[in-house]
Amino acid sequence: MLILTTYDWVPEPPRGYVRDLRARWALEESRLPYRVESTPFRDRGAEHLAHQPFAQVPWLTDGDVSIFESGAILAWLGERSPALMPADARGRAEVMQWLFAALNSVEMATLPWGLFHLMRQADDASPQWRFFDDWTRARLARLEPVLAEREWLAGSFSVADIAMADVLRLVDRFQGLDDSPACAAYVARATARPAFAKALADQLAHFAAAD
Amino acid sequence: MLILTTYDWVPEPPRGYVRDLRARWALEESRLPYRVESTPFRDRGAEHLAHQPFAQVPWLTDGDVSIFESGAILAWLGERSPALMPADARGRAEVMQWLFAALNSVEMATLPWGLFHLMRQADDASPQWRFFDDWTRARLARLEPVLAEREWLAGSFSVADIAMADVLRLVDRFQGLDDSPACAAYVARATARPAFAKALADQLAHFAAAD
Repeated sequence: MLILTTYDWVPEPPRGYVRDLRARWALEESRLPYRVESTPFRDRGAEHLAHQPFAQVPWLTDGDVSIFESGAILAWLGERSPALMPADARGRAEVMQWLFAALNSVEMATLPWGLFHLMRQADDASPQWRFFDDWTRARLARLEPVLAEREWLAGSFSVADIAMADVLRLVDRFQGLDDSPACAAYVARATARPAFAKALADQLAHFAAAD
Repeated sequence: MLILTTYDWVPEPPRGYVRDLRARWALEESRLPYRVESTPFRDRGAEHLAHQPFAQVPWLTDGDVSIFESGAILAWLGERSPALMPADARGRAEVMQWLFAALNSVEMATLPWGLFHLMRQADDASPQWRFFDDWTRARLARLEPVLAEREWLAGSFSVADIAMADVLRLVDRFQGLDDSPACAAYVARATARPAFAKALADQLAHFAAAD
């Protein structure tokens, strides 16, 4: 039995965006059996740090293996399920390069872009903000022709799409995809999947239950 | 024969930090045979985009597989060499979680921190800068006790250390590790490895040859 651990509660703004969502989505796509456990949001103690040294969530336990970082959890689940990643070396390389691209080339620009919007610091008078706005636009400009030509990043649907679509959701939340119709259509296509809807509803219900 | 492709030339400031360094370092550690090829820095055409859709470097070709994103290249090489990643599932999970941690939890804070220093935008009057300064300090504060207790992140030296040490090098370049002695000692330990010295010298020589 796989066990996914997330916070017991989070404030309103990040709900629907906490990173257990990516793991939940992959687990729902894979149909692997799992359950969700909680760790305190407010009091992050030694047991939390033993599983997640940055005091973040989620982590996954699979038998005697405990694994943190949502990217690593996606890669791990990809190896457990052909619904998430092909088994051949070439297909895996294709998925892995797009998984890392989502997290290290795109999200590195877009997460701060989204957070600055959330914190009301999307201020054109700030060169630091403009740096992120330009960087986000540059990444979307490269992604747009790729997504205009294909349904999913690596042949069939994979963990790379879970990561990339969730990364782009935050951009979409602040109207950042208005000039990138193929990216916007991709996010709509990915989030129309029943496994995403289930994962999102489950995350929202999990945090609401602790209010 | 593995082929690593990087730019033919780059301006002075990023030299020694271009991401082919991470792949070169891994290749030197592994002793797998490889050669380096160049793609134009100034004119990034369709052939470049076919290998690297964000018009970045490096990419690696291994037979008929072409793979981009330095993180994905490190994971790929890790599977090719026990000097870079253990072969058992638990050991691989350990390396993968730290590889993703380096790129998605640490570098997401520290790369902008370093770039703002480089661009002379490390300005305490800017809330956007202060966000990154705080975030970088928070990540280092969590990493410090981990690195105080172990020589390498995942048991023995691995691709996770190549990624994390190179991420922290940029922080060190701007005196960001002065209050994190275990992180500083880790960077010193990692960069004292002959494979790092060879990779760095080779990158510097590659770009200098095109001046």
